[in-house]
Formats: sequence, structure tokens, C-alpha cells
Amino acid sequence: MNRHQLVEQIFKKKSFLCVGLDTDLRKIPPHLLNDPDPIFAFNKQIIDATEPFAVAYKPNIAFYEALGPRGWASLQRTIEYIPKHCFTIADAKRGDIGNTSSLYAQAFFDEKSSGLNFDSVTVAPYMGRDSVTPFLEFADKWVILLALTSNEGGADFQLSTDQSGEYLFEKVLRVSQTWAHANRLMYVVGATQTQWLAQVRRIVPDAFLLVPGVGAQGGSLAEVAKHGLNADAGLLVNASRSIIYASNEPDFAEAARHEARLMQAEMAVCLAQLRR
Amino acid sequence: MNRHQLVEQIFKKKSFLCVGLDTDLRKIPPHLLNDPDPIFAFNKQIIDATEPFAVAYKPNIAFYEALGPRGWASLQRTIEYIPKHCFTIADAKRGDIGNTSSLYAQAFFDEKSSGLNFDSVTVAPYMGRDSVTPFLEFADKWVILLALTSNEGGADFQLSTDQSGEYLFEKVLRVSQTWAHANRLMYVVGATQTQWLAQVRRIVPDAFLLVPGVGAQGGSLAEVAKHGLNADAGLLVNASRSIIYASNEPDFAEAARHEARLMQAEMAVCLAQLRR
Repeated sequence: MNRHQLVEQIFKKKSFLCVGLDTDLRKIPPHLLNDPDPIFAFNKQIIDATEPFAVAYKPNIAFYEALGPRGWASLQRTIEYIPKHCFTIADAKRGDIGNTSSLYAQAFFDEKSSGLNFDSVTVAPYMGRDSVTPFLEFADKWVILLALTSNEGGADFQLSTDQSGEYLFEKVLRVSQTWAHANRLMYVVGATQTQWLAQVRRIVPDAFLLVPGVGAQGGSLAEVAKHGLNADAGLLVNASRSIIYASNEPDFAEAARHEARLMQAEMAVCLAQLRR
Repeated sequence: MNRHQLVEQIFKKKSFLCVGLDTDLRKIPPHLLNDPDPIFAFNKQIIDATEPFAVAYKPNIAFYEALGPRGWASLQRTIEYIPKHCFTIADAKRGDIGNTSSLYAQAFFDEKSSGLNFDSVTVAPYMGRDSVTPFLEFADKWVILLALTSNEGGADFQLSTDQSGEYLFEKVLRVSQTWAHANRLMYVVGATQTQWLAQVRRIVPDAFLLVPGVGAQGGSLAEVAKHGLNADAGLLVNASRSIIYASNEPDFAEAARHEARLMQAEMAVCLAQLRR
């Protein structure tokens, strides 16, 4: 999916909601455990229920990988099921030397090889340029680079300052713009760090930001929108647990739909204030 | 495998060689492609041939992941096949927020969940402490943290200096020692960076270093040993392509054995110079 198509979906659905498919066998409603593929059975109902209100879906790959080959099979079924007008994110946080990053790109982008055909993958920046650029050799596929993460340990290195006073996450934002255009490169910026969001926006005015940490992790959607929106929206705000685990009963999909609809309604108000 | 057992193997085999199982369908001898699982068929013969000279095996996970579920099945068979006295490394370069890193730990360490039972996993440090420590909750399992990598882009951020002049990779080494003991935490230090190896050793005198980049990537074993060895050896030197692709003919395993034996012989000389 290219940027034009993504922006079109956002303004059509009046939503920049991304639903995180962090699907955990220990947390899904127990009645689903009798299904031959409980993970996919859960995801399918979540997707059906939330699709009118969401523009993107983000499976965190760890949840599938932890189950070995059967987890990868559930992931394949899930990605195949997501409607093509939704943007898909492999939240994998990969990154390796060049020829190996090419294989990770193949894993998430090349359906013939791996059975997966995501629109984008999250990548850790520690190994630098040649760990990132191989992902961009696939047409219309995106890299979403970790910049400032929402976890406590995010401060350990990302807030290191260099001799000019620049934070490491700022350097990642600045330098990576020389690797790819904002039509192919997004950034992860945690919503628990809203004090930094305006600063991120100054460094990358055009880029899309993937913002996790709204909902269960405690970030505020209004604050994120205030500091993060640009003319193309430029935001994908992710909510995982607050939507997919809104209920643990047979009505879980309806409860998820309700939560997604609430977030979409708040997003519609934010988008209406944009001049386009 | 604990540190005592690893050190014992190194001095018993007079080797600190790690064989990288970067097994690529496009590079293995063509006659293997008729096998129901060509990747495992190749790995099995490489392991049989090199095991007398190697103390560790390191599959780079990208090579398996690129093939989807069947790649994970090949990886499971490979790990199950490696003799238990060899140290196994999942070169996965993972790392995510705490509860998600726990799932990656499950993926590589918890055989009941994923079918994999590695001794260690490589982890990227960008997300900090709570992205690393969940891996240490499994007894006798190791984290191998990226410090200074052998690729060109390694310099992009790893050689950023802070206000006191400390490089980012030095900060990673220094700070991470407060997270775990050297009996559970190793570091990746690229062999193409031998000028830095002595400096790394000053910061982490006791830790094991996993050194890739010897062989095909051009690093020198003698230089690595000179700057990197400590009283427990403290080194695992990895070679991938120079061993596993030494020949593309039906004699590939014999050729791999020959290359591994040459490296082991050089390592035996280095180890004999240690006072123990």
C-alpha cells in the first residue's frame, strides 16, 4: 500500500486507528480454545468487528513466534484474512547486516517465500543504514523504524545525548531521513512520551508516526493528536489490549467493536480540525 | 548450558569455534534439493562433519523465517539434532517491551511452547533494560547483546559519542553489566573492528564475546585472539560462509570439516598460550 492509498483510507474512515493483534492463548475467551486454530478464530472475529473503525492491523510477531510453526500458520491465515484496504504492520523489530535483513524482508513481504505479505515491518535502528535499506527494495513496502519507545528501558540509550546535545532518538530520526523518503519510512514513537512528540514532529514533519501505548499503557489520544497530526494525518495510533481484550466472554468481538468505535469517534473529531 | 560447562568444552576441544548455520536454499549443493527437508539435510551433514572442531552452532533465524512455517520446522529439527554438549545460539537480534520480550524468550527457550530449546539468543539493546531481562528468567539461558557490529552501518549510531566522549557501544557494555552477571550475558563484537576489541575487553574483562566476521567478512583470527582472549577463553568466534559453503559439490561436508579443522588448529595454538 502506498502513502496516497493510506491517507485516503484515513480520511474515508475518519480514523487513524491501528488494532494490535497481540493474541495470547492465555487471554482469549476460553470457548475459542476448542477451535482447531484458536488464534486465527479470535483474530477473525476481532477483524470483522473492528474493520469499519480501523485503518491498520499490527500483529506483534512475538505472540505467534512463541508458538512455533503453528503460530506462523495462524499468522499467515490472519494476514490473508485482513481486507486489502487495511494497512498491515509486522511488529517484528528486526534488523541485521544487509544480506540478512534482505531475508527478513523476504519473510514479511514475499508471500511466495514465507506465505506472508505485510505492508510494513518495524525495524530496530541499532545496526544502522544497511540493516534498514534492504527492506525498501520491495515496492510499496514500508519500514517503521524504532525512534522513541514507550517502555521504561527506552530511556537507557534512546535518551543518551551526544556532544551537541542531540538525543540518540533525534539522531535516528535525522540520519534515517537520508536513507529513505517519508513515503516509505515511518517511526515508532511511544505515546507515554507525549512531551517528546512535538519535538519528533519538528524533526520529521512529513513522516507518519506509529504511536503505541495509547490505552492500556496509559497514553492520551487527545495529547497525541495535538502534537502529532500533520496535513496527511501522519499518525497511526495503536491500541492492543484495551480493544482486543475488552471482554473475555463470548461477546468479546462486540466489546472490541465498541472500544474501537469510541476511539474512532475521538479521532474523527481530531481529523475534522485539520485544514485540507 | 552454564558457563562452567561451556569453558570446559572449549578447553576439551581446544576450540572456541562457532559454526554459523546461515543455510540458504540458493547456496547449498543442488543434489540436496531433492530431499524432503533440504535445509535440515544440509545442516545435519555440516554438524556431523564439524562437531569435533566446534563448540557452538549459530543459526541465523532470518534464513529460516524467510521460508515461513517449513523454515521453522527445519530449524526445530536442526536444534534437536545438535549434540547437547554444543552451545546453541539463536541469532535473532530480537528485543521488545518487557511482556513481549518474554514471548520471544519463550519462542527460543521453551521447547514445550515453540519446539525450540536454544542456549542463548542475540538481542538488540536499543529498547534498554526491560527488553533484555525477560530472557534471563530462564535458568542457564544466555543473552548475547549487540555491542559493536561488523557491518558498515554499525558506525551510524554505535560510534555516537556522548558528552563525556563515551561511545554508544561502550555505554551499552557498561550499563548492561548492571542488568546481569557475565555468566548469563555475552556481547557481539564484530571482528572487522579489531581496533576496538582491546577497548571492549577493558570494559567487560570477564564476559564472553561472540565475534562474527572472521572468514568471509575478512577479520583475522590471530588479531581477535590477541585482543579478546581472557582466562576462560571468553571468546566464541563465528564463521559461517567460509565453512558451510567451502564447497558446493557433494563433498561439501568434507570441505567444511577441513575448514573447521584449520580454524580449530589455529585456536588450539592461541589457547595453549593462556595460563590456567
